[in-house]
Amino acid sequence: MSKRTKIGVFDSGFGGLTVLRALTAALPGADFMYLGDTARLPYGSKSAATVTKYTGAAVEALRARGAELVVIACNTASALALPSLEETARVPLVGVIEAGAAEAARVLAGAPHRTALVLATEATVLSHAYRAACAAHGVQAFEHACPLLVPMVEEGWTDHGITAQTAYIYLRDALDAMREERGAISDELLARSGLPATDEEPVQPALVLLGCTHYPLLRPLLERTIASVMEAVPVVDSSTATAEHVRGLLPELAQAGDDTPAMEFMATDSPAKFKHLGERFLQRSIAEVDLVSLEV
Amino acid sequence: MSKRTKIGVFDSGFGGLTVLRALTAALPGADFMYLGDTARLPYGSKSAATVTKYTGAAVEALRARGAELVVIACNTASALALPSLEETARVPLVGVIEAGAAEAARVLAGAPHRTALVLATEATVLSHAYRAACAAHGVQAFEHACPLLVPMVEEGWTDHGITAQTAYIYLRDALDAMREERGAISDELLARSGLPATDEEPVQPALVLLGCTHYPLLRPLLERTIASVMEAVPVVDSSTATAEHVRGLLPELAQAGDDTPAMEFMATDSPAKFKHLGERFLQRSIAEVDLVSLEV
Repeated sequence: MSKRTKIGVFDSGFGGLTVLRALTAALPGADFMYLGDTARLPYGSKSAATVTKYTGAAVEALRARGAELVVIACNTASALALPSLEETARVPLVGVIEAGAAEAARVLAGAPHRTALVLATEATVLSHAYRAACAAHGVQAFEHACPLLVPMVEEGWTDHGITAQTAYIYLRDALDAMREERGAISDELLARSGLPATDEEPVQPALVLLGCTHYPLLRPLLERTIASVMEAVPVVDSSTATAEHVRGLLPELAQAGDDTPAMEFMATDSPAKFKHLGERFLQRSIAEVDLVSLEV
Repeated sequence: MSKRTKIGVFDSGFGGLTVLRALTAALPGADFMYLGDTARLPYGSKSAATVTKYTGAAVEALRARGAELVVIACNTASALALPSLEETARVPLVGVIEAGAAEAARVLAGAPHRTALVLATEATVLSHAYRAACAAHGVQAFEHACPLLVPMVEEGWTDHGITAQTAYIYLRDALDAMREERGAISDELLARSGLPATDEEPVQPALVLLGCTHYPLLRPLLERTIASVMEAVPVVDSSTATAEHVRGLLPELAQAGDDTPAMEFMATDSPAKFKHLGERFLQRSIAEVDLVSLEV
């Protein structure tokens, strides 16, 4: 029996399971181990120092259990903890934000204007991590917070009229904010140029980036809603983008091996709740969840 | 200058500010001190031991700063921590659940059937603390979880069509569940009695109890929605009920004194965020928020 590579996946809760799902599809030759720090979620309201301490302990726990690469499948931890952990962790790390930004840039290569609308949680938007990561790839990102989409996914309302109406409101507000921001820039340029004002073209992003690991579960609903408020554009989700990125790093795992991929689950709180909510995110059954302690 | 009585109010976050608002209206002769453990919210997903430890530290912090009575303005902490803290705390404690249940019983005194529909968060429902507290007062409580209402309040959608539609769905589901539960009991009694089946009267609760400190901000919306799905019934909220209960304990503070009531605010995370969100809950401006540490 040949030794298989084990990939660790970490999130504060359940959202990272959409990343795990994308990883299992992209890397059928790998084994996986998922750790959700469910006792201490959400990370969005915690300080950078706290998130770094918790994430560092989780990465080390996954490494100690055999992970040869760890995916930080959590936007908050990718934004706040990854920069310093990349220097100290004893295992290679991959974050969701950089992967999402790189994929947006790839899709927009050669596009007339490289603008992305990033939908994310309030904590992620306030960190401006996507704006920075996109800018490094030559993409201008407009970030818009959609606080109700995560609780709606957790309520199971992934194909619900209320979620569609809420997404419509967020997208319309995002376009208004984007047009206002662009308008302000245009007015300033116009004033400086001394040229007469002209009717402005309505602006819209060239791409929508789903910058929250819960949102892939809303992808069909969001694609329909996007098409109802603007000209249809490509939608990139950072879960799929992360899986593609990891496949690029470990191309030998893109082919299925002789063994069935192993999948282990760990949580820091209620295994029963993890199993129940986790199966909805993973869209397959979860046999067993180990309760682990990460107290540092 | 006469010494004024200082009342401490504790919550994991912002919801307890609706209790503080009710307290200031009911007790104009008192000074107040509010502590939100915003760095460690939400408590709903934490164990009883952890919630008790955190709540105990908060109660002691309020006592050390001069509080002569502490209101646990948090449903989770009232359910999980209050029973043991009542024995160890060095200051009298009042919780929101017992006050809400007592008020429901008072309103239903002499009613033909003493049934209450309790709307609350999932954590509060799973604890069945309202069911137990209501039963002790001779009221049969049906508890129904409304997970999206808290994030909708925090989004500021307290008078929004989406919140009204969501509340309608929750109330309709709650009535269905209540009728099913009652139906099952009736069927069993009928089978035992040997009598022929008859058309059943549609059941509905005699009262709706708002068992979450966020819900008073939705009270007008919820009252309209309740009237649209059933015969209108009294609505009791545990925030107002708690203030009434404290006024009963400290009747001398029901009259305004010569001094303007003092109000201090403390939070364990971002004072700026507390001020911003807190003003929405309190419906008045917050001058200053002290950052405090409760590490135990």
